[in-house]
Amino acid sequence: MLQQLSAEELPKVEKEIIDFINTYTIHDDLKKSMLYSIEAGGKRIRPLIVLSTVSAFRKELTPPVHQTAGALEMIHTYSLIHDDLPAMDNDDLRRGKPTNHKVYGEALAILAGDGLLTGAFQLISETTLSPAENVLLIQLLAKAAGIGGMVAGQAGDMEAENKHVPLNALKAIHRGKTGALLTYAFVAGGILADQPEYVIGLLEKLGKHVGLAFQIRDDLLDVVSTTEELGKQVGQDEKSDKSTYPALLGIEGAKQALAEELGQAEIVIQQLTKAAQFQPKIFEELLALFALKK
Amino acid sequence: MLQQLSAEELPKVEKEIIDFINTYTIHDDLKKSMLYSIEAGGKRIRPLIVLSTVSAFRKELTPPVHQTAGALEMIHTYSLIHDDLPAMDNDDLRRGKPTNHKVYGEALAILAGDGLLTGAFQLISETTLSPAENVLLIQLLAKAAGIGGMVAGQAGDMEAENKHVPLNALKAIHRGKTGALLTYAFVAGGILADQPEYVIGLLEKLGKHVGLAFQIRDDLLDVVSTTEELGKQVGQDEKSDKSTYPALLGIEGAKQALAEELGQAEIVIQQLTKAAQFQPKIFEELLALFALKK
Repeated sequence: MLQQLSAEELPKVEKEIIDFINTYTIHDDLKKSMLYSIEAGGKRIRPLIVLSTVSAFRKELTPPVHQTAGALEMIHTYSLIHDDLPAMDNDDLRRGKPTNHKVYGEALAILAGDGLLTGAFQLISETTLSPAENVLLIQLLAKAAGIGGMVAGQAGDMEAENKHVPLNALKAIHRGKTGALLTYAFVAGGILADQPEYVIGLLEKLGKHVGLAFQIRDDLLDVVSTTEELGKQVGQDEKSDKSTYPALLGIEGAKQALAEELGQAEIVIQQLTKAAQFQPKIFEELLALFALKK
Repeated sequence: MLQQLSAEELPKVEKEIIDFINTYTIHDDLKKSMLYSIEAGGKRIRPLIVLSTVSAFRKELTPPVHQTAGALEMIHTYSLIHDDLPAMDNDDLRRGKPTNHKVYGEALAILAGDGLLTGAFQLISETTLSPAENVLLIQLLAKAAGIGGMVAGQAGDMEAENKHVPLNALKAIHRGKTGALLTYAFVAGGILADQPEYVIGLLEKLGKHVGLAFQIRDDLLDVVSTTEELGKQVGQDEKSDKSTYPALLGIEGAKQALAEELGQAEIVIQQLTKAAQFQPKIFEELLALFALKK
């Protein structure tokens, strides 16, 4: 099922993004720079969560679903472009390719990020959903991506570099940096599938566990993978003396923490199955993406 | 009248912005960095246009007016923070104070900009206006600020550095870089004052003339002012061999072009006076801000 969503529905999400950029951008190099990072691919995990959530509630995948998922991926992509900048994480490699500023220069990379961020809100504002749904999706996205979410998480992450932070502080950083957008993906899926408030609440809870699982796995991969497997430089966290789950808990401890978050997510999926017209299979497949390969 | 709006209503706009930042920001230095640039002041010309436009139609200045004006100023402030970065215009001084990155470092300056941009959309989404009005105000703001507007204008401006561009290309850059947000200020005011489409059309036309006037005046001030008067480094355009109106038209030619745009704006104000319940006096006072002092 997840396979099928990836193969058939993700291209529609990508088409919404690319069409949007091609329709509205009036500066050629800016357009190229944004398309470069969008077309670099990546796991598309956030749009996949939106699509999976709507599907799990047996709802149709209409254009507003693809557009909302596209807007979310635009925000995620902007955050990668800005995070990779020399003043931030100073990364040369992303998704197996040179980072945006390595190809287009820092000025255009900053502007490409600004353009994708701004465009995401325009894209949602233009769906055929009711104005009330559009405003809600915009509001929650801005909250998740902004100064109470992702942007604050990134600021905390920068601050924590070359410094040892306790586990609770690390969790707070990741709730913002990666958790907020992943949680939004589940919640937006629930809104698009017209679910009632208590179901949205369960999706939010699920998103938080999946978000932490995602980050722990990401930290672990930086230790146990090769650069070729990962498509970005490995060992970066240790090099920059970053506080990570493996650094704080050891590799085995981090693996255990990952298993715990995934276990908690399982419990929420069972609750969802009882609470709603809900097909758990696709979420089981989704969770498997967050486990470490044996 | 304009004096009174400045004295009594602009502080309400500023309060909306500062309350928003204080309510939502969960990272201390990020909060300080955003507040630093917001509290640095500046002319507040964009919020003043929103307030003036609503007032000219004899409508009440309610909290949604202050919030929309605040969101617009947040977008303007983010664009200044990013434009001042070393990779962009590399400015050390802004509004008479060190630029954001000089005080908080580049990483936080980038994030403060991202946070203000994202927050602007959240702030509008939370007004008590109808969802349809909120979506429209968000959509037009994203269009004005994004890849078909301000961000594209800034990309064009960077590209034009150390290069001689013809007058038409220069105008196109400025329509994006400064014109789009100034035009939005008039249009948003019209929407907030519940004006019909043809009046909104006139406000858009007015915004375009005022936007060009603003830029020509800005270019002229860079040549004829001192750093102390202006609160930012003068002579920067010539230093970076930028194409400007004075460079292309000479100082007298630029002054004449400014007078022409202001004359066109006058004509639109007369049309507005015929078309709507409209008080022209406040717009006359507004236009005077864009003329050069004798």
